[in-house]
Amino acid sequence: MKTISTDKCYGGTQGVYVSRSDACDCDMTFAVFVPPQAAERKLPVLWYLSGLTCTHANVMEKGEYRRLAAELGLVIVCPDTSPRGDHVPDEPDNWQFGKGAGFYVDAIEPPFSTNYRMYSYIVEELPKLVAAEFPADMTRQGIFGHSMGGHGAITIALKNPERFRSCSAFAPICHPSVSGWSRPAFEKYLGSNKAVWRSYDACALIEDGRRFPEFFVDQGGSDAFLADGLRPAELKAVCAAAGVKLTLRMQEGYGHSYFFISTFMDDHLRWHAERLAGEVEDCSSAGAFRSGPGGKENIL
Amino acid sequence: MKTISTDKCYGGTQGVYVSRSDACDCDMTFAVFVPPQAAERKLPVLWYLSGLTCTHANVMEKGEYRRLAAELGLVIVCPDTSPRGDHVPDEPDNWQFGKGAGFYVDAIEPPFSTNYRMYSYIVEELPKLVAAEFPADMTRQGIFGHSMGGHGAITIALKNPERFRSCSAFAPICHPSVSGWSRPAFEKYLGSNKAVWRSYDACALIEDGRRFPEFFVDQGGSDAFLADGLRPAELKAVCAAAGVKLTLRMQEGYGHSYFFISTFMDDHLRWHAERLAGEVEDCSSAGAFRSGPGGKENIL
Repeated sequence: MKTISTDKCYGGTQGVYVSRSDACDCDMTFAVFVPPQAAERKLPVLWYLSGLTCTHANVMEKGEYRRLAAELGLVIVCPDTSPRGDHVPDEPDNWQFGKGAGFYVDAIEPPFSTNYRMYSYIVEELPKLVAAEFPADMTRQGIFGHSMGGHGAITIALKNPERFRSCSAFAPICHPSVSGWSRPAFEKYLGSNKAVWRSYDACALIEDGRRFPEFFVDQGGSDAFLADGLRPAELKAVCAAAGVKLTLRMQEGYGHSYFFISTFMDDHLRWHAERLAGEVEDCSSAGAFRSGPGGKENIL
Repeated sequence: MKTISTDKCYGGTQGVYVSRSDACDCDMTFAVFVPPQAAERKLPVLWYLSGLTCTHANVMEKGEYRRLAAELGLVIVCPDTSPRGDHVPDEPDNWQFGKGAGFYVDAIEPPFSTNYRMYSYIVEELPKLVAAEFPADMTRQGIFGHSMGGHGAITIALKNPERFRSCSAFAPICHPSVSGWSRPAFEKYLGSNKAVWRSYDACALIEDGRRFPEFFVDQGGSDAFLADGLRPAELKAVCAAAGVKLTLRMQEGYGHSYFFISTFMDDHLRWHAERLAGEVEDCSSAGAFRSGPGGKENIL
């Protein structure tokens, strides 16, 4: 692992690092925020998965997570969203596929299967590096993300419920195997076998019996991608049918950008901090879960 | 004035606008955050001037001012740092001069004197537009900024003490007429007359009798530009000699970037909110001024 940069921020350290990824057959860049409490003990780890076109930098610059993460004592890990490099196959004019659009799957179709293995990178490879290099208590992990990264967070939590204590999302792609936004990418990465598609689809995973204790989702009411790309109503219906607890808040007037994400970042950090408290440490300083401005539950 | 974008954020509206500037003989882009309280009344206005190479966007994306500005009820105006456009003379390879480096002066040397009139733009032209187009109480204005923008904020406050009730800065260029960072730009914008240089130099203005009630400055202790470019010790000496109140905090371990600025943004917003309270509105909800992590006063 090589350090690209470290900056003191809110008493902690925001770092950017690069490491060779065997899963993706390329160098992968990621950001880690280590709060000041890490000088004394290992801390819970919260994974943030970004959306289409993003690198590690978008949420690092615009997500506004450090103030409260420093207060709550959360290590925040922000990976890239795809393999990178000149040798990585891409469709440069397609923002919904290729570089910046790994969809957190392990591709099985050539030529993408060599590099586009973001599922293995996020679930297997990067956690080992984080455990080895940072003051991270890997018994206490949560995961969240935005849009394509919200899809990543929910599907990874459903497939690894023993790993994560908490999962939330901002405007997640809830039903990617049917959404016009993601279905073409699934076809190119995963081929024509719909059973494989379902293994990377939040709604389908729940329909097929996967479970996670509870989800917390914020969705902007003025998000242009709500109806086709994101489909939170379908996640709500599937969760209701399966008895999976879902807190879904429609935030009226909010869009799909980091102006939306940053507004509700505090709520998500507190949600995770409460659930990542436990035997090792009392996180009661996280305080009660507080609703953001205009938050309404389950109105979809 | 034309609206480029508006986004709901923390219950308010973050907008980006463009207007024709007569002062700069070009179109100028700027950002304005209007907090939710503006639905009911006009609100105090806080001007943020950015540093070298920046546009309106840097602080809008990385400054983390909206959460507390929405709570305190502050309109935040973030202008660009120079004229823009193909017809504007520039030195493309020089980040300390030309586009992105207006230094908040009115240039008098050709060919720069046609466009590089940022002082008039910030002090005269843009306030008229803000007063006309936004719910701004122009009797309650504060000003702050970073680096070159900290220089802009302090010099503009010293030259217009009747206009501003409060002034603060992050890592300001305190003595630009002698600093290696800014002296070459002063020569090209202002010519060889040192009396003109002194009229845009915080230390010189105070030496020459200009006054402002008090300044609040945060400076990163690990800022690579501290010794030559910024020179806060010289501002401290001049303020002490003149009896001007200065709260100067050295923040150990912090650099010159927005990781530093965002960490102490809350402290600056509270400082201004306290001083922008007054006859029109009771801003007591702003709360007491709170020191940031590791803040020490006057240790330079």
